[in-house]
Amino acid sequence: MTELAAVRAALKTQAVETPSWAYGNSGTRFKVFAQAGVPRTPQEKLDDAARVHAFTGVAPTVALHIPWDRVEDYAALARYAEDRGVRLGAINSNTFQDDDYRLGSICHPDAAVRRKAVDHLLECVDIMDATGSRDLKLWFADGTNYPGQDDVRARQDRLAEGLAEVYERLGDDQRMLLEYKFFEPAFYTTDVPDWGTAYAHCLKLGEKAQVVVDTGHHAPGTNIEFIVATLLREGKLGGFDFNSRFYADDDLMVGAADPFQLFRIMYEVVRGGGFTPEVAFMLDQCHNIEAKIPAIIRSVMNVQEATAKALLVDRAALAGAQASGDVLGANAVLMDAYDTDVRPLLREVREEMGLDPDPLAAYARSGWAERIVAERVGGEQAGWGA
Amino acid sequence: MTELAAVRAALKTQAVETPSWAYGNSGTRFKVFAQAGVPRTPQEKLDDAARVHAFTGVAPTVALHIPWDRVEDYAALARYAEDRGVRLGAINSNTFQDDDYRLGSICHPDAAVRRKAVDHLLECVDIMDATGSRDLKLWFADGTNYPGQDDVRARQDRLAEGLAEVYERLGDDQRMLLEYKFFEPAFYTTDVPDWGTAYAHCLKLGEKAQVVVDTGHHAPGTNIEFIVATLLREGKLGGFDFNSRFYADDDLMVGAADPFQLFRIMYEVVRGGGFTPEVAFMLDQCHNIEAKIPAIIRSVMNVQEATAKALLVDRAALAGAQASGDVLGANAVLMDAYDTDVRPLLREVREEMGLDPDPLAAYARSGWAERIVAERVGGEQAGWGA
Amino acid sequence: MTELAAVRAALKTQAVETPSWAYGNSGTRFKVFAQAGVPRTPQEKLDDAARVHAFTGVAPTVALHIPWDRVEDYAALARYAEDRGVRLGAINSNTFQDDDYRLGSICHPDAAVRRKAVDHLLECVDIMDATGSRDLKLWFADGTNYPGQDDVRARQDRLAEGLAEVYERLGDDQRMLLEYKFFEPAFYTTDVPDWGTAYAHCLKLGEKAQVVVDTGHHAPGTNIEFIVATLLREGKLGGFDFNSRFYADDDLMVGAADPFQLFRIMYEVVRGGGFTPEVAFMLDQCHNIEAKIPAIIRSVMNVQEATAKALLVDRAALAGAQASGDVLGANAVLMDAYDTDVRPLLREVREEMGLDPDPLAAYARSGWAERIVAERVGGEQAGWGA
Amino acid sequence: MTELAAVRAALKTQAVETPSWAYGNSGTRFKVFAQAGVPRTPQEKLDDAARVHAFTGVAPTVALHIPWDRVEDYAALARYAEDRGVRLGAINSNTFQDDDYRLGSICHPDAAVRRKAVDHLLECVDIMDATGSRDLKLWFADGTNYPGQDDVRARQDRLAEGLAEVYERLGDDQRMLLEYKFFEPAFYTTDVPDWGTAYAHCLKLGEKAQVVVDTGHHAPGTNIEFIVATLLREGKLGGFDFNSRFYADDDLMVGAADPFQLFRIMYEVVRGGGFTPEVAFMLDQCHNIEAKIPAIIRSVMNVQEATAKALLVDRAALAGAQASGDVLGANAVLMDAYDTDVRPLLREVREEMGLDPDPLAAYARSGWAERIVAERVGGEQAGWGA
Repeated sequence: MTELAAVRAALKTQAVETPSWAYGNSGTRFKVFAQAGVPRTPQEKLDDAARVHAFTGVAPTVALHIPWDRVEDYAALARYAEDRGVRLGAINSNTFQDDDYRLGSICHPDAAVRRKAVDHLLECVDIMDATGSRDLKLWFADGTNYPGQDDVRARQDRLAEGLAEVYERLGDDQRMLLEYKFFEPAFYTTDVPDWGTAYAHCLKLGEKAQVVVDTGHHAPGTNIEFIVATLLREGKLGGFDFNSRFYADDDLMVGAADPFQLFRIMYEVVRGGGFTPEVAFMLDQCHNIEAKIPAIIRSVMNVQEATAKALLVDRAALAGAQASGDVLGANAVLMDAYDTDVRPLLREVREEMGLDPDPLAAYARSGWAERIVAERVGGEQAGWGA
Repeated sequence: MTELAAVRAALKTQAVETPSWAYGNSGTRFKVFAQAGVPRTPQEKLDDAARVHAFTGVAPTVALHIPWDRVEDYAALARYAEDRGVRLGAINSNTFQDDDYRLGSICHPDAAVRRKAVDHLLECVDIMDATGSRDLKLWFADGTNYPGQDDVRARQDRLAEGLAEVYERLGDDQRMLLEYKFFEPAFYTTDVPDWGTAYAHCLKLGEKAQVVVDTGHHAPGTNIEFIVATLLREGKLGGFDFNSRFYADDDLMVGAADPFQLFRIMYEVVRGGGFTPEVAFMLDQCHNIEAKIPAIIRSVMNVQEATAKALLVDRAALAGAQASGDVLGANAVLMDAYDTDVRPLLREVREEMGLDPDPLAAYARSGWAERIVAERVGGEQAGWGA
Repeated sequence: MTELAAVRAALKTQAVETPSWAYGNSGTRFKVFAQAGVPRTPQEKLDDAARVHAFTGVAPTVALHIPWDRVEDYAALARYAEDRGVRLGAINSNTFQDDDYRLGSICHPDAAVRRKAVDHLLECVDIMDATGSRDLKLWFADGTNYPGQDDVRARQDRLAEGLAEVYERLGDDQRMLLEYKFFEPAFYTTDVPDWGTAYAHCLKLGEKAQVVVDTGHHAPGTNIEFIVATLLREGKLGGFDFNSRFYADDDLMVGAADPFQLFRIMYEVVRGGGFTPEVAFMLDQCHNIEAKIPAIIRSVMNVQEATAKALLVDRAALAGAQASGDVLGANAVLMDAYDTDVRPLLREVREEMGLDPDPLAAYARSGWAERIVAERVGGEQAGWGA
Repeated sequence: MTELAAVRAALKTQAVETPSWAYGNSGTRFKVFAQAGVPRTPQEKLDDAARVHAFTGVAPTVALHIPWDRVEDYAALARYAEDRGVRLGAINSNTFQDDDYRLGSICHPDAAVRRKAVDHLLECVDIMDATGSRDLKLWFADGTNYPGQDDVRARQDRLAEGLAEVYERLGDDQRMLLEYKFFEPAFYTTDVPDWGTAYAHCLKLGEKAQVVVDTGHHAPGTNIEFIVATLLREGKLGGFDFNSRFYADDDLMVGAADPFQLFRIMYEVVRGGGFTPEVAFMLDQCHNIEAKIPAIIRSVMNVQEATAKALLVDRAALAGAQASGDVLGANAVLMDAYDTDVRPLLREVREEMGLDPDPLAAYARSGWAERIVAERVGGEQAGWGA
């Protein structure tokens, strides 16, 4: 197989998980702008996600958020997804929207609140059993707003205790993905603020605990691809929550703010052996002002393009330049791949997969956007609160 | 009058405006935690604000947010305030919560939306006529989320045009305070992102247009006191929106995150001749998880303490050390004032003003917190949406 | 002329000024790594700069730094340059390397030091008269390291006074370009820290005073293209100091850290009518570890590529999408130009200009690198100190 | 013993190590301003350090930097120190100032350079044997400036290998302190950029490898006290390099930029059981423009004041407020200690220790400053290069 053929083959195996909540309404603390046609039920979210997969071919799974996607019968929901050509993916816990969680959840000073939070996480594992999901994705809004508000270290003890209980509950084929975040919604301390903290906890928990990297959850200037390379080296990279940002956790379409960074991240993934199913590639975005389904299609395509460029890097030439200390030469090898317009290649890949070469145009022609606006009338639109 | 007496006298003239919306519920995009006893009407907000003034003696005015504080009869609202010992202060416009404002307000690509936004600003001036308010405070959520989304420069033209129309409407004793903000809720461009942009617009508008500095609206590392000194030198500092932050626009209690910075800001205010009624000292905060009225009292006290320290700087000694290039000596003069515990001084000032020396304890003893929880039952709690 | 022909024509008119100091040694506070073959005299710097222009065709001028490039006879130096196919460009002042400048130069508390600094600036204008340079580029290392060290506002007064004296000295065809910088080498205050400060001073000075944007001199997260658009709108953009950065003022090759940002900047230049000789496009970089001449060639090419992409934006389609509020569509128009591989186009442009399509390969083949290593033996290598 | 007596007793046990290099010249990449009277030899640095200890009573040890402090006979140097009332402290390695280290040291792509770097580290352990130093402090300037320049992950492998060899060489009572740094002098990747990376390496190395926190080495907004609390919880906090910063690694006097942050750090130290000799409290600063010895005295005093405030926190009251979820109450307990003016307490402590209550005034009166200016004539002043 030629090298280009290998790149094509690899691109066909790509899998980007889309998040159920991205199909619903979202916004900022200032305003949530509702959009016509937004899903009202978990099933309608799956309908939309199935469209994304139908047109891109590389978005086969859908992440759920509990309780936003709570249903009576999860096995039925899984079948509903499969009937539409997609599968259920990671289960995302939510321990930040009950009034009880004002001062935290799993790290709360009150043991009763911690109990409630852990019980929710255990429920999520129950759901995983029903859906066949492999990954429990944990992000905690826990933290403090004011110096002194709570004991920083005691909160770590509580966190460790809660995580351990949930870890014990995991089945043999299940994993816990621990997400870190620099700040927000807490403004002074965050209980899992950086990859180091997530890593330290996962290390103690065991092999089924892995770190997840949300590309919007870092301090200004952080070199994310370094973290990716390091976690892969440590065997602790469980997956990504992809999105992009200019300032804070802006949750824009992945690749929209800094496509070069996304390419560098994907290069480290490829170089570090992370382009495998063991690393979950998920989107976690908000489409506050733009149309949601096309935004998600575009995001999937952005990941594809970055991946294609990463796969195109001439690694032998790169290694040679690096070994000889040729700074400009090595940089040029990397940039040559980045500067390549991979859109023609991806159009070919899609055609080989039996897809329209232009997913966005195909979606636009499909009439789906008009149909959901017409049909999804009444009921309550899905959003972060539901 | 001795110097210390002059400091005491100055402290008694201090006026910190509290914002009506800080008495209501607020939160992050993840969750608004409602609090018992929160006001349900503009009048109840004024009741609470009057308590803050009663216990601190230096919070005589209350800023309104339109439409959150819309009432039938603003003159009556002004009398309501005066009956309780406070006055109405700045009128804050709100052009970010209608569905029409998804892509901006005064900078929106559609002229009809711009018209609506300008009309709202003109309505705010009408309200100022009725309330006797001097200042129209303008903050725009306008901006874009994605490169290319709109024409950056055309938006400036629209902004200038809208501001000019509102400026023309101002009465002789009225001012327009233009606020800038680094980012949020827009994530790629913000139409008034920095003091330079606000300054350039105000300069063209005329003397009644002034810049307002929100202490949470800057890029990481920005030297805010430099901006304060510069705007005072240019005669363009209209006022402050005080709050504090560790990361983004966290809107924590002023002085909570970096009390030394607050002191340095107040020092430049004092040094630059800005400790006068021409500069409006306002709070603009969110008390998402802490009790609101005590948080506001504490914030007012934090401003007092920073002011007291700024007034205590031995300016003759400082000038001498600065002139002689004595880096450590000059720094030491400033730090000597900062390191001073001014709480005893402020207790004395309060006693001289006929107040309890400990406003927080006095508020706690007053029973107000219990009373509002008991009485404010039913109705709709005030928040950012109402 | 077709649109593509217009793009080609525009690209042939491009002029990127290279800085004499980038050909010499540079480093960090930790270490300056000397490179073999580095110039020892201003003339040798011009020799190198001539090579860059010879291979790129778009680097016709060279900026000087006084006193680093001080010579007896500037007219002779200008002829030396012209004999080699390049011209002398902006004169850069240097008021940061004398012991007298420990506490500042033009803002120093001591009038004698200020006098010395202003005299240096006046000397630079004398040099401009001799070299025929149009632009005096002013960057001041002035600032303070500790709160209280000096009077922030008084320093602004001194700055204004010094600039005014220099401005008066300018000839009819000469300009003053005032550069701002967020921080470094001063760590608490910088006397011209942001575009707003530079703009305010330039506005008072008059039309011949313009702001220069160094792409590495901003706070984290700053939207530089917004500043570019704003300064063009105000008629106050005098030029650029191009380089790139990940963290602080890293002075890496322009386009190396965030090529998408460079494209966005060039787009605002084009859109705002700034792609004219009135805006000076200059490099200001350090090649601490990489070979200097190829790094500068690469940088010039990076600017070319960003410019080509900016020129390729379908502005009619963009305006249409923007006007209709089509967020994704408008973004897609911009991204379509960015994602285009413009290297084939630029190779054609170079061939039409009679140049080798691959400047780096042509330079490598030219033997210049080996020649200067062989010939430039003995003497003192140029660097920031000489 | 009353609580206040316990605080006094604790303060008398404090030990802040001063760095030999802070007594020499330092600067930025733009300029090193030499100061009269600066030491010319390691012995003269010890003379100055002895003055700092003589006047503060809490600076008993001095860190060395190899090769800057290379001498023939380290045992003799140790005796020299003891004769003057101080002891030699940590040995700091320096693998960034040889030309060989242009592309790194212990992570360099060339095995020969790595060998040289490791040999230097082994030499440092030899020196420790001679000086009786406990700690080897490792900071690496290693990293890359351009994407692709070198293989990020391979560099980690090389780092691990080099560290392991040095670790094996440590004696039973010796430790390795691994320092991390966000950026500078490398601008794209840094090989130990954050605490997580340092922690992961130390964990694998073993108990004698510990992380050192330089307070200036973090991304903007990083919560350093959280890291301190976490490392103490993990048993991996080896020490501090104290300094302060507004922007990057400014290396200003500790406590000068954000005294509240220093207090919060010291609070977590005290709360986490880190106020013991097992945690090394060291200064690592540059006094570029201010007088060096008084700056170091001031820095030691700043650490003392922050420590005193941290010790004064009413931990029982704090725990109570935290447990009850009283956000404002808990914050108030912490702030009460911070707002206390501890200078009178420290004056008393000094008097009890037989010291002048005002170290800076006592130093000024001592005539030392004048003496070293008069005596240290000729020779080469110490600086970062020597």
